[in-house]
Amino acid sequence: MTQKACLGFSFKGGLNILYYVKALFFNGDTLVLDSDYKKPDTSECIVRVDLAGICGTDLEILRGYMSYNGVLGHEFVGTVVNGPTNLIGKRVVGEINVGCKHCESCKNGLQRHCPNRTVLGILNRDGAFAQFLSLPEENLHIIPDTVSLQQAVFVEPLAAAFEILEQVNIKPEWKIAIVGDGRLAQLISRVMKLKSKNIFCFGKHEDKLKKLQTLDISTSSEITTSDEKCFDLVIEATGRESGFLDSLKLVKPRGNVILKSTIASKNKLDLSPAVVHEITFIGSRCGPFKPAIDALATGVIQTDDLIDSEYTIDNYDKAFKRASEPDSLKVLLRPNQ
Amino acid sequence: MTQKACLGFSFKGGLNILYYVKALFFNGDTLVLDSDYKKPDTSECIVRVDLAGICGTDLEILRGYMSYNGVLGHEFVGTVVNGPTNLIGKRVVGEINVGCKHCESCKNGLQRHCPNRTVLGILNRDGAFAQFLSLPEENLHIIPDTVSLQQAVFVEPLAAAFEILEQVNIKPEWKIAIVGDGRLAQLISRVMKLKSKNIFCFGKHEDKLKKLQTLDISTSSEITTSDEKCFDLVIEATGRESGFLDSLKLVKPRGNVILKSTIASKNKLDLSPAVVHEITFIGSRCGPFKPAIDALATGVIQTDDLIDSEYTIDNYDKAFKRASEPDSLKVLLRPNQ
Repeated sequence: MTQKACLGFSFKGGLNILYYVKALFFNGDTLVLDSDYKKPDTSECIVRVDLAGICGTDLEILRGYMSYNGVLGHEFVGTVVNGPTNLIGKRVVGEINVGCKHCESCKNGLQRHCPNRTVLGILNRDGAFAQFLSLPEENLHIIPDTVSLQQAVFVEPLAAAFEILEQVNIKPEWKIAIVGDGRLAQLISRVMKLKSKNIFCFGKHEDKLKKLQTLDISTSSEITTSDEKCFDLVIEATGRESGFLDSLKLVKPRGNVILKSTIASKNKLDLSPAVVHEITFIGSRCGPFKPAIDALATGVIQTDDLIDSEYTIDNYDKAFKRASEPDSLKVLLRPNQ
Repeated sequence: MTQKACLGFSFKGGLNILYYVKALFFNGDTLVLDSDYKKPDTSECIVRVDLAGICGTDLEILRGYMSYNGVLGHEFVGTVVNGPTNLIGKRVVGEINVGCKHCESCKNGLQRHCPNRTVLGILNRDGAFAQFLSLPEENLHIIPDTVSLQQAVFVEPLAAAFEILEQVNIKPEWKIAIVGDGRLAQLISRVMKLKSKNIFCFGKHEDKLKKLQTLDISTSSEITTSDEKCFDLVIEATGRESGFLDSLKLVKPRGNVILKSTIASKNKLDLSPAVVHEITFIGSRCGPFKPAIDALATGVIQTDDLIDSEYTIDNYDKAFKRASEPDSLKVLLRPNQ
């Protein structure tokens, strides 16, 4: 850690920010590494970011999604440097939605749907591609010692995969298709494998599909007529518009389609087949952290083979270039050296 | 009944078609009243159509939906003139989907999702705007004597409204919005009123909304900001593309939207808000006849105020003109005089 970018304690014992923070800022047009970025919010817990992950949503934000301006990044593991005593020095991951605590959603424990929420690195809240970030105490989860930093950084996207189990009551005999073979599709395939033996992943990248084959997941690089209308549950995780149409092809009448990609349609969309076949579409976003942490701690879910590469924050341009390449998997950023 | 259009029995006791059948045929371009239409299929039950209803789907078919060629019409009540002895002379309504009996859907009792199905007046099966139609015995339901012809003709669309109760477990405290105030929306509003006190119908036609107000259903002719994201369940029954966008405005995060309109989108559709808010969309089509018949027989659902007008089949052009007018409700056709 350079002197210019650390936090320190004043002689009165309370926290004061003595130095500035290095952070990767998106100004709506360009990604800029700012070495003098503003202080994190000391009314919340302050976390030193040990490792962060680049996600498809980050790449979408760079293309204009959410019209976000601020420090990017929402997948991280870090160490608490300011907050309640029991948290100081603990390794934590953090839920990314911060609710207003007053609305109906917040009162029902659904702060991730609070209409006034901020979202780490996505909506009105500086994110994890920085040496330090702040989040409320209730957003933080301590990571067991048996979980490595390289595993813990997958908690947030893995929770998004576990969200599907909160939304659909999967029957063991169901045939399940995952459309896409990228970062999120890989995690979803692993979670679905816990629930059914009949998992089929439809992807375009031979190397990525091979990773799933070693987990005894069937894969295919194209949808044939024998695949059509065969699946009780289809999970669309391509990040591309075509994934929606592919999912409609695969799902059985009265089946379910989980929508994971936040992609605006560039074409006219005909929903009438979905009405005729009585398909259920379920939008799916962030998920519960506890099952994700447990799955990593017990080794039920393996993620080590999904790490593509790791870069220091100073090499952010190389990291983002690599994350944008079609054959890449999880690219990690290390904000503190 | 004119001699040219009746069925008769041969002296051997079995049924023979002695005469031809008057039927309203759509040739893909024009609606034609054919007085010499082909005989109904005597391998199935033959029903003399007493009364038939014009539905939004019929109007869509005339605009090219389903690329259907054949006799139009799928809402009817009639009298069995050929079939098992216990059915002869009985007043019946009929489920419109006829499955192959061999596929997985048919074996699971879901013949309405059979990939090889025919559908009365919609897909490869001549419909109800004719003096006679044929359907398999298992498709027919006897109507109790207490239900009038004018009520029974509503069984098929009312079943489509009851389908929603098969698909969603409605909680009594839910706020439910119906988008649309037309024929189907009126029936859906009445069915939803059985399940929740908080029913709101958003429509454009004052006279139609007034009918719902007398049933203690709240109505509004526009969506205001205070309506947005307020509803646990939204039912889209406008028959128009804008209904989809209005439904997205009204539904709560994590809420449900039932899609009843089979309308292809003419514009680009952005599904990302639905993903972010984790909305569930459920396509909904034909439904169970039994609860619909029971609701009419017990008087729990009233339909008499939904009848707009009645025409003989010879005046079909006037009937279709009236059914196409925005202020019309259910227009009935009487194929036999």
